[in-house]
Amino acid sequence: MTALHINAFVMNTVSHIQHGLWRHPEARQADFDDVTVWVDLVRTLEAGLFDAVFFADVVGLYGPVGGDYTVNAREGLQIPSHDPSVLLSALAVSTEHLGLAFTSSVLQAHPFEFARRASTLDHISRGRIAWNIVTSTQENAARNFGLARLTEHDERYEWAEEYLDVVFKLWEGSWDEGALVKDRARGVLADARRIHRINHVGPRYRVEGPHLPAPSPQRTPLLFQAGSSPAGRAFAARNAEAQFISAPGPEAAAALIAETRDLAERVGRRREDIKFFQGFAFVIGSTEEEAQRREAELDAYVSIDGFLAHSNLGVSQDDGRPLPPETLLKDIRTNGGRSHIAWLRQRELGHEPTVGDLGRLVARRHPRLVGTPDQIADALALWQRAGIDGVNLINWTIPGSYREFNEHLLPVLQRRGLAKREYAPGSLRRKLFGRDRLDDRHPAARWRGAFTPRLAAE
Amino acid sequence: MTALHINAFVMNTVSHIQHGLWRHPEARQADFDDVTVWVDLVRTLEAGLFDAVFFADVVGLYGPVGGDYTVNAREGLQIPSHDPSVLLSALAVSTEHLGLAFTSSVLQAHPFEFARRASTLDHISRGRIAWNIVTSTQENAARNFGLARLTEHDERYEWAEEYLDVVFKLWEGSWDEGALVKDRARGVLADARRIHRINHVGPRYRVEGPHLPAPSPQRTPLLFQAGSSPAGRAFAARNAEAQFISAPGPEAAAALIAETRDLAERVGRRREDIKFFQGFAFVIGSTEEEAQRREAELDAYVSIDGFLAHSNLGVSQDDGRPLPPETLLKDIRTNGGRSHIAWLRQRELGHEPTVGDLGRLVARRHPRLVGTPDQIADALALWQRAGIDGVNLINWTIPGSYREFNEHLLPVLQRRGLAKREYAPGSLRRKLFGRDRLDDRHPAARWRGAFTPRLAAE
Repeated sequence: MTALHINAFVMNTVSHIQHGLWRHPEARQADFDDVTVWVDLVRTLEAGLFDAVFFADVVGLYGPVGGDYTVNAREGLQIPSHDPSVLLSALAVSTEHLGLAFTSSVLQAHPFEFARRASTLDHISRGRIAWNIVTSTQENAARNFGLARLTEHDERYEWAEEYLDVVFKLWEGSWDEGALVKDRARGVLADARRIHRINHVGPRYRVEGPHLPAPSPQRTPLLFQAGSSPAGRAFAARNAEAQFISAPGPEAAAALIAETRDLAERVGRRREDIKFFQGFAFVIGSTEEEAQRREAELDAYVSIDGFLAHSNLGVSQDDGRPLPPETLLKDIRTNGGRSHIAWLRQRELGHEPTVGDLGRLVARRHPRLVGTPDQIADALALWQRAGIDGVNLINWTIPGSYREFNEHLLPVLQRRGLAKREYAPGSLRRKLFGRDRLDDRHPAARWRGAFTPRLAAE
Repeated sequence: MTALHINAFVMNTVSHIQHGLWRHPEARQADFDDVTVWVDLVRTLEAGLFDAVFFADVVGLYGPVGGDYTVNAREGLQIPSHDPSVLLSALAVSTEHLGLAFTSSVLQAHPFEFARRASTLDHISRGRIAWNIVTSTQENAARNFGLARLTEHDERYEWAEEYLDVVFKLWEGSWDEGALVKDRARGVLADARRIHRINHVGPRYRVEGPHLPAPSPQRTPLLFQAGSSPAGRAFAARNAEAQFISAPGPEAAAALIAETRDLAERVGRRREDIKFFQGFAFVIGSTEEEAQRREAELDAYVSIDGFLAHSNLGVSQDDGRPLPPETLLKDIRTNGGRSHIAWLRQRELGHEPTVGDLGRLVARRHPRLVGTPDQIADALALWQRAGIDGVNLINWTIPGSYREFNEHLLPVLQRRGLAKREYAPGSLRRKLFGRDRLDDRHPAARWRGAFTPRLAAE
């Protein structure tokens, strides 16, 4: 067996995915504004040989239906939330090996500034940074950044392609290898003949350069992506080195992975150039019965309103307030989630499906693996045979879910060769792909040596 | 005597102010990309009871004359340079009291995103963040962010005023006190009725809100500013809580301080609402002669080309290359620095002034205090009587200059009541002004309670 890569999937907020769980007595999520929560967490993750901590992010609120965000606030549904990028250096100096992945949208930062921030972090962490490229899907996010409405879906990916062009030019093309000389005796810090302006001119951006940081260990941070639409998948096939997927089962994962790998081959990359991370929530017990008891205990904290608001299913009263969970789905208007509702109607529930049923269904959108460590390892082996390279581990409680992984699941996975026994040395990309820099097949590589204008006159 | 506030004035780059000094055997500036340099430094600063570490920043290159940036690269003249904001959390978790001041231009970040980043840092540091508001003065910076040329000077300050409006609305007006409830038993994280959209609409920005972070210890970070033009001074008088000045002597400082305090009174603030920090470089010796010997030793590392390029004086050959230092000023074209040149011509040098003379003059733009600890303390007492509240301590070498301060100057200043003996508790603003939040006279205060739209429907 090959070891699976393991990421912790978190967000710099109270309620990221498992809504309602912040109320659990063991949960520290509500204290996310205390940096010691994160410093303790990354030390736990490094003790468990996690490959990376992966910070999701959004820059606006989900919803609302009817102009009301009561549920978002009440549930801590990604509000309050903090910027992940400025948290990472605290985590970098608290760890040695753990990868540090963060999300940043093309909507939120100018690519010249973003590229510099990412390079700074890659220097500080000695090559442990990954970037999750997103385009923002919340209407409120668009309105926070001056747009009247969300840019249309496929156009957002064109925007992202230009954004990548700019940052790739800065990371890969602006500084030649060896431009940083640091020769004290000769008094030469850097050689202007080996530093280049990029002079990017495109539909959205004009950027002169040069990139202000010298090359960091990875130059381009490891590139994550999570889009599942056709445009998103094509974007991932061209650009991503790791894709976060949320397939309902191993067969669906296998199909999705094969399709993206086919697409990657068609644009000149290799099938193994992209690694796939599936999202899971674990519930571990010493017996199957204990695991199920624990699942029921966790489910008792689930906020149906939180999950429905997060999924933008839009089941609500006319004033935007949530509907009582016993409301029959057949009696309400919805602005989404029709396939879920149809699925519920077909299912033998023994009663007409309700809002509560829909919420509970959405709460299981990410597969749960519930059972003994051996049962969970069996399931992960199945998923691995379907093609996944790694796991994004969703938490119920921070740090509880990750401590449980370390204590109960990791030893079993290690015994079966499904988890590594020590860190490999070097940068995050070296740990995953055996090299510090992007391979030559990646589209960013075309900018290496591509720029003639030097900082020095000829 | 009142204790002076002491900041360390640095930049996340090789050569910030004292160009050429990176070659000094004790200088660690060339390794600024190694985070341990900064972690070690802030621990040194905290041992010396510094109030804050102050990170300058620019997002483009100085110059060039004739399209050539050879000097910038050779001297490490603020290239390579790294973003300061993402370094600060590493420094926050390495210290307990030290203030963390960073520069960010209105050019580089959208105010919605910037406000969130600053609030995140203020949470992480428990209220120790200061923001140095700048508008960027490098043509290259403008071209890095899509502008054909630098926005005209006074218009940049109008831009900055709108930028401040947006971030003040987010920091001061979006969340009422007490909106964050964290009631696990009732399942209420935050109260939507006490969180507000800001719906800012202005010439440059449209921002809906709400602010995504809940209020941080200071809400608005401590506000630094350094402009000395009439528009810059008016801006400071309205908005700044601390101003960084670089007066040539105590009398000039007194005039400048009085003028800005007059302006502040005219806009409804009090004279003591702004604290003034004068930039100094120290050379300390056990005797006056030793100090002068050490100054000569340091001056031997000074790069005249570096200082001239930094000051944009534009003395260069037609191809942009630096002129030999023996070149006579009367023989060259210049695009700036005429007052310096006139001053040199009037001075009894014993020879016709040269490019080298001009460089050496510029190298002393920030006053140097050279002497025994007692002589330096005498000088600082004079400056304090002229009205300065604090010092921005410019380094020759990192960390050498700050270690010397701790070892030789601090005890003398403490004995004379010119430096504190321990940190006061609490946030940076509390340490400087006795309160965590901006006072009610500050223009940001008008946004408190100003927004009716709630996240909850009425």
